[in-house]
Amino acid sequence: MDNLHVRHHFPVFNKQNADMIYFDNAATTQKPRYVIDTISDYYVNHNFNVHRSVYSDAGETTARFEKARQHVAEFINAASPQQIVFTSGTTDSINLIANGYYANHLQAGDEIVVSIAEHHSNLLPWQRLAKKNGATLRFIPLTDDATLDLTAAKKIISDKTKLVAVTWVSNVLGDISPIADLTELAHQHGADILVDGAQAAPELPIDVEKIPMDWLAFSGHKMLAPTGIGILYGKTSLLENMNSPRLGGEMIESVSTTSYKPKELPYRLEAGTPNIEGVIGLDAALLYLEELEMPKVKTHCQKLGQYLYDELDQLDGVTVYGPKLRETGIVAFNVDGIHPHDAATFLDAKHIDVRAGQHCAEPLTHQLGVNATLRASLYIYNTRSECKRLVDSIKEMKEFFHGFN
Amino acid sequence: MDNLHVRHHFPVFNKQNADMIYFDNAATTQKPRYVIDTISDYYVNHNFNVHRSVYSDAGETTARFEKARQHVAEFINAASPQQIVFTSGTTDSINLIANGYYANHLQAGDEIVVSIAEHHSNLLPWQRLAKKNGATLRFIPLTDDATLDLTAAKKIISDKTKLVAVTWVSNVLGDISPIADLTELAHQHGADILVDGAQAAPELPIDVEKIPMDWLAFSGHKMLAPTGIGILYGKTSLLENMNSPRLGGEMIESVSTTSYKPKELPYRLEAGTPNIEGVIGLDAALLYLEELEMPKVKTHCQKLGQYLYDELDQLDGVTVYGPKLRETGIVAFNVDGIHPHDAATFLDAKHIDVRAGQHCAEPLTHQLGVNATLRASLYIYNTRSECKRLVDSIKEMKEFFHGFN
Repeated sequence: MDNLHVRHHFPVFNKQNADMIYFDNAATTQKPRYVIDTISDYYVNHNFNVHRSVYSDAGETTARFEKARQHVAEFINAASPQQIVFTSGTTDSINLIANGYYANHLQAGDEIVVSIAEHHSNLLPWQRLAKKNGATLRFIPLTDDATLDLTAAKKIISDKTKLVAVTWVSNVLGDISPIADLTELAHQHGADILVDGAQAAPELPIDVEKIPMDWLAFSGHKMLAPTGIGILYGKTSLLENMNSPRLGGEMIESVSTTSYKPKELPYRLEAGTPNIEGVIGLDAALLYLEELEMPKVKTHCQKLGQYLYDELDQLDGVTVYGPKLRETGIVAFNVDGIHPHDAATFLDAKHIDVRAGQHCAEPLTHQLGVNATLRASLYIYNTRSECKRLVDSIKEMKEFFHGFN
Repeated sequence: MDNLHVRHHFPVFNKQNADMIYFDNAATTQKPRYVIDTISDYYVNHNFNVHRSVYSDAGETTARFEKARQHVAEFINAASPQQIVFTSGTTDSINLIANGYYANHLQAGDEIVVSIAEHHSNLLPWQRLAKKNGATLRFIPLTDDATLDLTAAKKIISDKTKLVAVTWVSNVLGDISPIADLTELAHQHGADILVDGAQAAPELPIDVEKIPMDWLAFSGHKMLAPTGIGILYGKTSLLENMNSPRLGGEMIESVSTTSYKPKELPYRLEAGTPNIEGVIGLDAALLYLEELEMPKVKTHCQKLGQYLYDELDQLDGVTVYGPKLRETGIVAFNVDGIHPHDAATFLDAKHIDVRAGQHCAEPLTHQLGVNATLRASLYIYNTRSECKRLVDSIKEMKEFFHGFN
C-alpha cells in the first residue's frame, strides 16, 4: 500500500493542516475525497427518499441504497443482504440486539459473558438487561500482558451461558480477541456470540461464514464513512425472532387501529427513513477500502502500530500497554508523572491529536491500574515520520515537565 | 419570499433536471447549496469526534455541535439546549419517548389518545405499549371535512388520559391540528401531550413556550437537512425521569462492572457517537430557513397548496381530500377510475415526482374510504407553473386512460 499516495486522497491533509498529526482514528477516521464527493453528488443529484415510491428518481435511489446493503453483505461475506440491518451506529446495533432479542430470550439464571475490556456500549446494555431479567453478567479477565484470557474464558463459558458478547479489537489496547476460538466455545455450550466489530471492521478482513459468529455490530464513521450509520449483522434465525424496539413507517406490511403486520427482513427491523447519505457514503468507503485491499490495510496498521509501540517502549518512564507483539494500529501508553490530560494538551500545542482518558472502557482502565491513558490510534494515511514526531514530542514533553519539577 | 431566487440555491434544479417537478417534499426535501457545502466543509476541515477529547480540533467541533443544539433550542423557543436531544429521526424520537418514559409511567387502566390521522410512527409505538402495559389506545376521529374533531376530542380526553399523542400537520391531508387547544385540554386532565412535528417543523414557526407541549419530535431531512438526524424536545421534568433505551459511551459519568452513573441532560439520553454531520447540516438548514423567515415559508406553502387544491378541485372526476381552506403545502387527491400507482407512473413519465400509496397512515387512508391516494407535497422552491403543469398532466392522463376504456 502506497501510503503517501493514500494520504493525497484525504483533503483534510491539505496545506492548511500540513502540520496536523491525526492519531484519533479509533474515535473517527478522516474521509477520502471519494466519499465526500459521493455524498455531495448524492445531495445534488439523487436526494430522494427510499422505498415506498413509484417515481423513478426515488426508485433509482432505492436501488442504490439496496445495492449498498448487498455491498456490506459482501464486505463481511454474509450469505444474504437480508442479514444486514442499518442502524445509527455500533451502540445502536448492540442495544437493538439487547432490547429486541435478548430482552425476550434471557431467563433468570442465564449468564451473559463479556470481557473486562469491553467498550461501555458492549457492557452497559448487558449490565442492565442481566439485572432486569435476573441473569448474571460474568467477565473474562485479561492475561498478564493484557490480552483476553482464553484459558479463563473456557472456565467461565458454560452451559449456563446464553450469550458471549466480546469486542474483536480492544479500542484501548488494540489487541485482537480470539474470536474464532470464542465462537467455537460459545457454540459448544449452545450459547450465541455477539462480536463488537467497531474497531475490527476498519482494519481486519471479515468473514462471518468462516467465523460463524451470531451477531456482528460495527459503525461507518470509524472506517471512512459518515457518522450516524451502523451495521447490525445477524444470523437469519435470530433476526427472525427479533422484535424491533423501534416501530414506525417502512417496516410494516399493513396496519389497523389495533395491530400491525411487519414486513420481511431486514425491513421489519428498520423503522422510519434511514440515514440514506450515511449508507451511500458507507458504500463508497467500502469500495475505497476494497481497492486498497483489506489485508494490506491490516498489514499497514499492524506494522505502523508495532513501530510506534517499539519506539515508545524504548523511552524511560513511558509505559506502553498490551503485548509487545502488535496486531493493530492502536497504542495506549502513559508517561510517568504526567497526567494523560496534561500530556494530550502538550501534544495538542504541537498539533498532534491523541486521545486521553478512559476511552469509554472504564473497567479496563482500572484493570490496567491507572485512571486514564493516552491513546494513539493510527490508520491508513498515517506514516512513520508522524510516529517519530510523536515520540520526539514525548521526549520533549518529559524534559519540559521535568524542568518544572 | 422570492421563490425563483430560492430555487437557484438548490443545485438539484440544474439544467440536467430542469424538467423535474419535485412534489415529494413530505418524504424528504432537497438540500440548498449552503447545506451541502457546509457538510463538505465539515468533512474536509472539521471531521473530529465530539466530546470526551482534550485536543483543540475536536474541541472546536464539539463547540460547533453544541452551538447547533443551542440553535435548535432557539428555533423552537425552548428554554434550554438541555431539552434538545439528538436522535436519528422523528420515528426514533417517538420510540425513545415510548420506551424510555411511558414504558415506566403507563399503568393498567390508563389511556393514550391519538388521532386517526397519525403516521405509523406515532401509532405503532403506542399500540404496542398500550397492549403491554394494559392501557387503552383511543382515537380522535375526523370531522366530515377530514380535520381533527376537537369536539370529539373533548369527550375522549379524560382524567384517565395519560398521554395525548397527535400530529401537528397531517402528512396526508396537510391540515393543521389544533395543538394549542389539545395542549390545554390535555393539561386540564393532568395528561401530557406529545406533538409529532415531522411535517410541522418545515412549514410552521414553532414556539414551545407559547404552546407548552410536553414533547415535540421532528426530523432534519424534511426541512433541508440530512437524513439520520432527528430532534426530541421534552420538558425538563419529564426528560429527567426518562431512562435511555440506548446505553453506551458518552452518556455516562462513571462505570463499574456492576453499575453506572449517567451524565446530566441531554447527554444521558445520547449514547454513542452522534450523527455529527447531520447536526452540522441541520444547523445550516435552520440558518437558511431563518433567513427566509418561517412566517414567509408558511405563507408560501399555504398559498401554493391552496392554488393546487383549487385547480385540482375544479377538474371533473378528481377528488381532493381535506378542507377547502388550505393551511400547508400538502395536497392529497385521487382521479376516478385510475389507481394512484398508475397515475404516479404516468406522471413519472413526465418527470413529475408525486407519491402514491397510504403514506404510512393506513388507518387514515381507510377512513377516507379509499385504499391509496396521490399526494403532492410542495415546499419553498416549488412554483405555480409547476402546479399548473401537474394539473395539465392530470387532464392529459384522464384523456389517456379514457381513450383505453
